[in-house]
Amino acid sequence: MDKKSLYVEDKLGEECGVFGIFNNDDNDSGHMAYYGLYALQHRGQESCGIAVIDDTVVKTYKDMGLVNEVFDDDILDGLKGNIAIGHVRYSTTGGSNRINSQPIISKYAKGILAIAHNGNISNASKLRMEMEHRGLIFQTSSDPEIIAYLIAAERVKTTSLENAVNRMMDVAKGAYSLVIMSAKKLVGCRDPLGMRPLVLGKVGNSYVLASETCALDGIGGEFIRDVEPGEIVVIDKDGVRSIKDHCGKVPSKFCIFEYVYFARPDSIVEGLSVHEARRRAGRILAKEHPVEADMVIGVPDSGLDAALGYAEESGIPYGIGLIKNRYIGRTFIAPTQGAREDAVKIKLNAMRATVEGKRIVMIDDSIVRGTTCGRIVKILKDAGAKEVHMRVCSPPFLWPCYYGTDVPSKEHLIACRLNADEICKQINADSLGYLSLEGLHKIGEGAHTTFCDACFTGNYPTVTPEKEMENVDEKEIRKSLKFEIQY
Amino acid sequence: MDKKSLYVEDKLGEECGVFGIFNNDDNDSGHMAYYGLYALQHRGQESCGIAVIDDTVVKTYKDMGLVNEVFDDDILDGLKGNIAIGHVRYSTTGGSNRINSQPIISKYAKGILAIAHNGNISNASKLRMEMEHRGLIFQTSSDPEIIAYLIAAERVKTTSLENAVNRMMDVAKGAYSLVIMSAKKLVGCRDPLGMRPLVLGKVGNSYVLASETCALDGIGGEFIRDVEPGEIVVIDKDGVRSIKDHCGKVPSKFCIFEYVYFARPDSIVEGLSVHEARRRAGRILAKEHPVEADMVIGVPDSGLDAALGYAEESGIPYGIGLIKNRYIGRTFIAPTQGAREDAVKIKLNAMRATVEGKRIVMIDDSIVRGTTCGRIVKILKDAGAKEVHMRVCSPPFLWPCYYGTDVPSKEHLIACRLNADEICKQINADSLGYLSLEGLHKIGEGAHTTFCDACFTGNYPTVTPEKEMENVDEKEIRKSLKFEIQY
Amino acid sequence: MDKKSLYVEDKLGEECGVFGIFNNDDNDSGHMAYYGLYALQHRGQESCGIAVIDDTVVKTYKDMGLVNEVFDDDILDGLKGNIAIGHVRYSTTGGSNRINSQPIISKYAKGILAIAHNGNISNASKLRMEMEHRGLIFQTSSDPEIIAYLIAAERVKTTSLENAVNRMMDVAKGAYSLVIMSAKKLVGCRDPLGMRPLVLGKVGNSYVLASETCALDGIGGEFIRDVEPGEIVVIDKDGVRSIKDHCGKVPSKFCIFEYVYFARPDSIVEGLSVHEARRRAGRILAKEHPVEADMVIGVPDSGLDAALGYAEESGIPYGIGLIKNRYIGRTFIAPTQGAREDAVKIKLNAMRATVEGKRIVMIDDSIVRGTTCGRIVKILKDAGAKEVHMRVCSPPFLWPCYYGTDVPSKEHLIACRLNADEICKQINADSLGYLSLEGLHKIGEGAHTTFCDACFTGNYPTVTPEKEMENVDEKEIRKSLKFEIQY
Amino acid sequence: MDKKSLYVEDKLGEECGVFGIFNNDDNDSGHMAYYGLYALQHRGQESCGIAVIDDTVVKTYKDMGLVNEVFDDDILDGLKGNIAIGHVRYSTTGGSNRINSQPIISKYAKGILAIAHNGNISNASKLRMEMEHRGLIFQTSSDPEIIAYLIAAERVKTTSLENAVNRMMDVAKGAYSLVIMSAKKLVGCRDPLGMRPLVLGKVGNSYVLASETCALDGIGGEFIRDVEPGEIVVIDKDGVRSIKDHCGKVPSKFCIFEYVYFARPDSIVEGLSVHEARRRAGRILAKEHPVEADMVIGVPDSGLDAALGYAEESGIPYGIGLIKNRYIGRTFIAPTQGAREDAVKIKLNAMRATVEGKRIVMIDDSIVRGTTCGRIVKILKDAGAKEVHMRVCSPPFLWPCYYGTDVPSKEHLIACRLNADEICKQINADSLGYLSLEGLHKIGEGAHTTFCDACFTGNYPTVTPEKEMENVDEKEIRKSLKFEIQY
Repeated sequence: MDKKSLYVEDKLGEECGVFGIFNNDDNDSGHMAYYGLYALQHRGQESCGIAVIDDTVVKTYKDMGLVNEVFDDDILDGLKGNIAIGHVRYSTTGGSNRINSQPIISKYAKGILAIAHNGNISNASKLRMEMEHRGLIFQTSSDPEIIAYLIAAERVKTTSLENAVNRMMDVAKGAYSLVIMSAKKLVGCRDPLGMRPLVLGKVGNSYVLASETCALDGIGGEFIRDVEPGEIVVIDKDGVRSIKDHCGKVPSKFCIFEYVYFARPDSIVEGLSVHEARRRAGRILAKEHPVEADMVIGVPDSGLDAALGYAEESGIPYGIGLIKNRYIGRTFIAPTQGAREDAVKIKLNAMRATVEGKRIVMIDDSIVRGTTCGRIVKILKDAGAKEVHMRVCSPPFLWPCYYGTDVPSKEHLIACRLNADEICKQINADSLGYLSLEGLHKIGEGAHTTFCDACFTGNYPTVTPEKEMENVDEKEIRKSLKFEIQY
Repeated sequence: MDKKSLYVEDKLGEECGVFGIFNNDDNDSGHMAYYGLYALQHRGQESCGIAVIDDTVVKTYKDMGLVNEVFDDDILDGLKGNIAIGHVRYSTTGGSNRINSQPIISKYAKGILAIAHNGNISNASKLRMEMEHRGLIFQTSSDPEIIAYLIAAERVKTTSLENAVNRMMDVAKGAYSLVIMSAKKLVGCRDPLGMRPLVLGKVGNSYVLASETCALDGIGGEFIRDVEPGEIVVIDKDGVRSIKDHCGKVPSKFCIFEYVYFARPDSIVEGLSVHEARRRAGRILAKEHPVEADMVIGVPDSGLDAALGYAEESGIPYGIGLIKNRYIGRTFIAPTQGAREDAVKIKLNAMRATVEGKRIVMIDDSIVRGTTCGRIVKILKDAGAKEVHMRVCSPPFLWPCYYGTDVPSKEHLIACRLNADEICKQINADSLGYLSLEGLHKIGEGAHTTFCDACFTGNYPTVTPEKEMENVDEKEIRKSLKFEIQY
Repeated sequence: MDKKSLYVEDKLGEECGVFGIFNNDDNDSGHMAYYGLYALQHRGQESCGIAVIDDTVVKTYKDMGLVNEVFDDDILDGLKGNIAIGHVRYSTTGGSNRINSQPIISKYAKGILAIAHNGNISNASKLRMEMEHRGLIFQTSSDPEIIAYLIAAERVKTTSLENAVNRMMDVAKGAYSLVIMSAKKLVGCRDPLGMRPLVLGKVGNSYVLASETCALDGIGGEFIRDVEPGEIVVIDKDGVRSIKDHCGKVPSKFCIFEYVYFARPDSIVEGLSVHEARRRAGRILAKEHPVEADMVIGVPDSGLDAALGYAEESGIPYGIGLIKNRYIGRTFIAPTQGAREDAVKIKLNAMRATVEGKRIVMIDDSIVRGTTCGRIVKILKDAGAKEVHMRVCSPPFLWPCYYGTDVPSKEHLIACRLNADEICKQINADSLGYLSLEGLHKIGEGAHTTFCDACFTGNYPTVTPEKEMENVDEKEIRKSLKFEIQY
Repeated sequence: MDKKSLYVEDKLGEECGVFGIFNNDDNDSGHMAYYGLYALQHRGQESCGIAVIDDTVVKTYKDMGLVNEVFDDDILDGLKGNIAIGHVRYSTTGGSNRINSQPIISKYAKGILAIAHNGNISNASKLRMEMEHRGLIFQTSSDPEIIAYLIAAERVKTTSLENAVNRMMDVAKGAYSLVIMSAKKLVGCRDPLGMRPLVLGKVGNSYVLASETCALDGIGGEFIRDVEPGEIVVIDKDGVRSIKDHCGKVPSKFCIFEYVYFARPDSIVEGLSVHEARRRAGRILAKEHPVEADMVIGVPDSGLDAALGYAEESGIPYGIGLIKNRYIGRTFIAPTQGAREDAVKIKLNAMRATVEGKRIVMIDDSIVRGTTCGRIVKILKDAGAKEVHMRVCSPPFLWPCYYGTDVPSKEHLIACRLNADEICKQINADSLGYLSLEGLHKIGEGAHTTFCDACFTGNYPTVTPEKEMENVDEKEIRKSLKFEIQY
C-alpha cells in the first residue's frame, strides 16, 4: 500500500469516462461499448462496467480493473442488446470499491434505469441527508444513486424519462455528464455549466454518446457535435431529439484542466484540439518564461505536446529526453530501501545521448504535490544535463475541486506552502516558470465555452458543499457512519 | 452450463444460513463469523459474505463462492470489529449474481443497517410495487432490500432500531429469520410463524445468533435457546433483551423439511436432534413399508441416518452400499457422450462387496424431479444387487414453496405426473415407499413447534404471492423489466 | 503455513494415482483421463496432470491443485488424442512444486516418452549420483526423471520400448507402478514386489490402466485383472500383450496399508474388496480388544467400514457419532487463538443425540503422530459420551517407509515415544486397542499376494536407501545443493 | 486466438533479456532482479523468471506473463539470496509454454546450474540429436537444456564451472548471451560473434550482468563495460575476472537490428546510444529519400527517434501525428466484424490537428509482413493528410534469422513477394523509401563492432541449421515427435 503510493505520479486523479450507444445496426452493443471504453481508459483506471438492454432484460458486468482485465470475449458475448452504456472510473467521491463501480442499475416504478456519470454533484451531501430523512436508503456512497432517486421520484409524477431528467437538473448542482438508459431510450445530458465534456456521434446508423471524440474514433464513428451545456439528448427508435430548457441560462464553465491534462491529445473538445491547446500552452510558456537553452524536452506523455510548442516558439531544438517504461502496471512494487529508492529509474529514465552536456528546458503539465519533479530534475542532471529549466503548463494549484477531480487538500498542495522560487530551489531546478492565469485562458481560445479555473483561483461557479451544509445540524452529520465496503 | 445441470443432484436447493456475533471478548469478529459460516455452508454454496462494525466504520466482504474460496486470512484480518454478521446463500429469489449476495449494507437517516436474511417474504412483489410507486428504487432483486426500506421508513418515525424492526414485522409476510446490525446493536428476529430456524448462543462473554446449533459448536460456543417465532432479540453492550409483540399470536409453522434434508444432522432444532428425527423417519418407513431384504443402505449423505433407523426397526443389517466421491467440486464437468454418460459412476459408486447378490433397501431423503434415483438403482443392480427397494423419507412433492426453498414448478415435479407405482417402474426399483404425511409429522414429535407441510399438501400458512397480486393491475406487472445483473 | 498445519489430519500422506487409456473408440482421451483421475483423487491432492498423444504430437497439461481445479472443458478439449496418461500426486520425495508434477514428458532418441509413476525408487539417490557422474542433468527431484533416463539409455540399445522398460526393471529397486506412453504404445508395469496396485480394464473397445478399480467404475469400464508383480503390459493397435521376465522371482510384497487407508473402499485390490478388508479389521479388533459399550462409531471417512465390522462382531449397535464438514477445502484457515483453538469443532463435530450418556467404541484407521485423536476423544466427551474406547485398525507405526508413503521420521511417530497405555492416557481415552500384527495380516486373507508391513516391523523387502549409500563418498553427498523450486 | 493475431503489430518478435547480480550488499537479490527485468521487459513479454542462490539452496519462480503480473512482494521476499539471475522471454524456438520459461535449473554432478539465455544456438538440432543418441533426454524444447548438458558433460572432466563454459563455447554455434549461476559463482558469456548484447555493471558493491544498460539505470547502478564477444566473465567473492580464449578470433557480428528496433532507446549498446543510432537512421533516410512535405511524424514508439532525425536533416517540422493507446494489454479483443474491423482505431489514432491538410512523412522502423502500415496510412488520410510518404529505418527483410529473432518465413515477408513500388501501391502511400544497406551500416558507426545483416542480405555468419542437418539421416528427423507442452 504505502510502497505503491511512493510511486504514484504527481498528477490529478483523472475522473471518469462515459459511453452510450443506441445500436440500429446489430445487437453487439457490448463489444462496441468495450472499444469505446478502451479509448476512454485514460479517464479512469480503477473500475469499469457495461450495461446493455436486450429487449426487456438488462444485463450488467462491472468490476475493479482496467477494461482489458475486466472483460473478455465470453463476457462481451453475454452483453448483447440494442442499447448499451459503459463507464470507466477513477474514484473521486465514494470509496475505491466494487459497489461504487458504474453503471448503476435501478429498478423503479417505470422499469429500469441505468446510469453512468462523470462529474460531481456539489450539493450531494445535502440532497442525501434530505432523502434519508424521507426514509430512503443508500447502498453506495456515490452520486449516481442520488441521481437515480431524483429521477425516479420525478418519473412517477411526469410522462417521460427525459422530463424526469429535466426536473432532476433543477435540483442537482455541480458537474455532471450523464448517460442514462431505460428499456427504450438512451439519454445523455450535461450540467448547465457544461463542466465535463460529452459528445454526440454516429457509427453506421447508430448513435453514440461519449466523453471524448477519441471514443468515436476508437469505434470507427464520426463526430456530430458536442452536447450543449444544460442540454438533454434523447435517442430512441425515432432518432435524436433535444430538450434545452437548461441551456444558455448561465455562462458555461468548462474545466480548463481537461485541455491541460485530462483529455486525450487526439480528442477535439468544445471545438478545439487538445493537442493544439497543449502546444499553444508551450508557445505561451516560451513567451512568458524564455530561457537560453540547448534542448526542449517533455515529460512523457502529457508534457510532449507542449514541449513541441515551446520548441517551435523559442527556436530551441525539440528532443526526446526522457523514456517512460511502458510496462509499469498497477501492481508495480516500488523500492523502499533507503538510498536505493532514490536511484531507481525504472519508471522514467533519462536519454543520456539527448541531455548530456546540454541546457535543458523540461515541460510538464502541472505540479500538484511536488513529489516527483525534483526526482526528474535529478535524473536529468545525473545523466549529464548542465541546467534544467522547468516549465509548467498550468498555474499553481491552490484550491480544492468540487466537480469531479481529486485536487488534494491544501496541506498537500506544494503551491500552498511554497512560492515558485522556493519550489524551484527545492526541486533543484535552474529556473521554474508556471503558465500565467492569463496564459491559461489563452490556451482555450477558439473553444466555444468559457472556463472554470477554480482550482487555481478559488472562483467556484456554484455554491460549495461547505456552504451548502452550513445550516445543517451538526448532529446529523456526525450520525453518518463511514462506509468501507469491499465487495 | 447444460453439461453441469445434467449432474445436479435431485435435491431441493438449500436456502440460506445467517450468523451474527456481538463480540465482548475481542475484536476478531470476522474470523468468528468465518467459522460460523463454515459450519452453515450446507445451507448455501453460491455466495457468502461478512460485514463487521468497527467503531464507526462498517466493513464488508462478499463474493460468489464457498466460504473457503471467498475468504483468506488477509481479508479476515481486515474484518476486525466488535459486531459481525454473515451469510451463506443459495439463490431462491433474486438471480444468481454477486449483487444479490448478502449481507446487504444500507446507509439511512439513522446511520448504517446491515441485514442477513434466511427465508422468503411472500408478499415481496406487492410491497416492492407499492414502494416503487412512492419513488423508491431497487438495486437488487432480493428481499433484504425491501426489509431495509421497511425498517428505514419506520426508523425515522420511531425511537429505536428494534421498534422499527417490530413495525416491519407487521408488514412483511412469509418466512424470515433475520440478523441485523447497526453501529451499536445486533438484532435477530424470526417471523411469527417461525418457519426458518434461528438460535441464540454464547461463546466466552459474547452472544451469537445462528441458523443452526452446529454453528455454535463450530466456534466452540454453547447453545442458549431457540429464538421464538415472532421474537426480536436485541443484543448490545447491556446484554440481551427481547421484544415479543409478535409472539404466540398464530401457531408456529416450522418447515418440516429442515429435519428431512436442510439442517445438518448434528444440529438440535426446536429442541429435537435432526439426526434423531431422520432415524425416526427410517423407523417409521420400516413400519409403513416393510420388505424382506438382506441389507439396508442409505444414499449418502442425507439418507444415512434414516437407513440406520430402518435397519434398527426392521432388523435387516445396515451396510455401506454407496460411496460418494468427496472431491466433486462446483466446476465438475459432467460427461455428455451418449451411452457413456449413463455408465459413468464418478459421483456415486456402488460397493460391490456390500450389495452383490443381495436384496437391498435403499433410503433417500426425497424425490424431487426423479432424475437421479433411477440411475442409482441401476448402479446398484450393475454391482450385483438382486433387488432394490427404494424408501423415501418424505411424501411426494406436489406444491411449490414460497418460503425460501426452490421446489421446482409442477411440471418438473415427478409426483405431479406419475403415481408411486409409475415412478417405481420408471426408476426400475423392485418397490417404492414414500413416508406418509402422518409419518412425516411424527418425525417432528418432541419439537416445540407445529409444522408447515405445504409442499406436500398445498396448505400454505400465508396468503400466496399469486393471491396477493390478484388485484394488482396487470399492466403494472408487465412493466417490470427483468434484472440479469452479473457483477 | 503454520496455521494450516495445525489442522492437518493425522494421516499418512496418500501417495499417487496413475491412469492410462489406449483409446480405440474415439479421440476424447483427455476427458476419459479426467474422469479416471477424479476417481483416484484420494490418492493425491497436491497436483495432477494429463498427457495425450495426438498422432505425432504430445500435449500435456498439469498444475498444482485438485483435478476439478486444474482442468476445465476448454483444456480437456485441447487434450484430444488416442492415448492418454494421467497422474494425481501427493508429494513423497521431490518437493511440493509444479515442476515435480507428472506426467513428465521427455524427448529422446526414439521420440517421446511420457511417464506417470506411483511408488518410490529405493535406490534413487544412488542411481542419480551415478548418472550425474556420467554428465547427466536433473531438472526435477522426483523419480520419473531417473526412470526416463534408464529407459532412454536402454532404448537406444534395444529394439522396443517394452524391452527398454524390461531392462530398467533390472536396475530400479523399490516400489513402482508405472504408466508409460510413447507415440504408438501404452505400457504399464509393476515392480517385481508388486508393492503398489495397478489394474487392467476395458471400456468399450479401449484398454485402460489404473491404480484402482474405482477408476474403471468411474469411466463406466470393466475390470479385467490386476497387473502382476513384475509384469509389463504393452497395449497398442494390435491389442494387449505381456512381458513377464520379472514375474514370480520373489514373493510379492503388497503394501498392507493400501487396505487399511490408502485405497478407496469400493475398490477391489488383488482380488479383495477394500471395504471387506476394513470391515474384517473391525471384526478382528472386536475379538482382540472387546469392551462393554453402548455404541460403535467410526471416525469418518476411513473408520466407518471397520466400525461396522466391530459392531457386527461385538453385537454393540453401530451409530453415526461424528459428522465431518464436507466443505473444508485446502485453504481452510485454522484458528490459532489460544483456548479457542481447542474448542473449535469445525472439521469434525460430535452427534450429541448418538453419544450422550453412552459408552462409545471409536474406530480409526491408524495413529501416526497422535495429534488429533485426543481432540476427537474430547469432542465426544464434551458431547456427553460417558466412556470412549479407541480401537485402531493397524498396529503402531514404528518405521519409516521407503516405498511411496510419507511415514514421518521416528521422532514424530507417537508410538516410538509412548507405549499404548501411555498413549491412551495422553489422549484421555478409557481404553486403547491396536490391531495386532497377526490381525493385520488376516485382513488381507484372500488377496492373491503377501504383504509388506515394514512400517510396523522394520522388515524391509529391499535394501534401504541408507544401506545403498553407505559406501558412497560423503563428500559427494554434501555437494548436493538443495532444490527448492517454486514454479 | 485468431482474433488477437489480427492485431499483432507488424514487428519482429523481441527475443529475450537476461539479468544477473552477485550481491555483496545484502541478500535481497530477488527484488534487484525484479527491477532489472522490469527495465528489460521490452525484450520479452511472454514469460519471466528469477532464480536465486541462498547459501546452499536454489529457489526459482517463473511463469507466463509480464514481470508485474508474475511477481508480487511475497514471492520476491521468498527469493532472498546473494546471487540471482533472471530472464524475460519471447518465444523464438521452443513453444510458448511454461516449461520453456527460464532460468532453467539443473542438478548435476557438481551441484546446481542455473542458466538464462538470450540468443539461438544455430546447431541446436544437430547437438540435440547427437545427445539423444547418447541416451540423454530432453524435457524442454529450448536451447538452455542443451547448454546445460554441454556444461555438465565438461564440468565432470574439468576443474571449474568457467572452464566447462569455455569448452561448451567450442561446440555451441550461433548467438548466445548467457548468465549462469552456480552455488558460489555468477558467470556471464557472449558468443564469439557477439551477436546479442551483454553488459557488466555495478551497483553499490555488487556486480551486475544485463542485456542492456537500461537495466543498470533501472536499479540505480552504473555501467562498467560491454562483455566482449567470446568473453567469459566470472564473478565470485574474489571479484570479477575474465577468460578470453574465444575472443578476437573472428570479426564480431552484432545484430544491427538491435539498434533499429530491439534495444531500448535509452540504452548504450557497444558504445553507441540506441537513440542516437535511430536518429541517424532518420537523417540518412532524409538524404536517401528526400521529399517535399509539411510535417514529419513517427509511428510510436520505435519510429519517433528516427522521425526527429529526418526532421532535423530535412528541415521539415517534426510533429506528433499518431497517438498510441497505452492501455492495450495482452488480452485485448480485436474486432472482427467485417467493415468495422478496418475502421477501428483503438490502438493507434491520428492526431487530426497535426495531419489535416498536410503532406506527411511517416517513419517506421521496419516492414515485416506489411499488415499494418497500410492501415496506418489510411488512418492518416482519413484524418485529412493530403499525402503520406512512408520511410523505413531498415532495408527490406528477405531472409530468416537463426540467431534469436523470429523473422517469419519467406512466404510471410512482404518484400519477398513485392518490390518497393508494389508495396507502396498496396499500402496506398504516396511514396515509400527503405533505408539502404549502406545506410543501415552507417547508423552503427562508432559502435565497437561490425554487424550481422543476414536478414537483409542472407550473409549468415555461421553455418545455417539447414546446412548442419544436411548429412543427417532423414529418418532420424522424422522420428522427432512434436512437443506441445502446455504446463
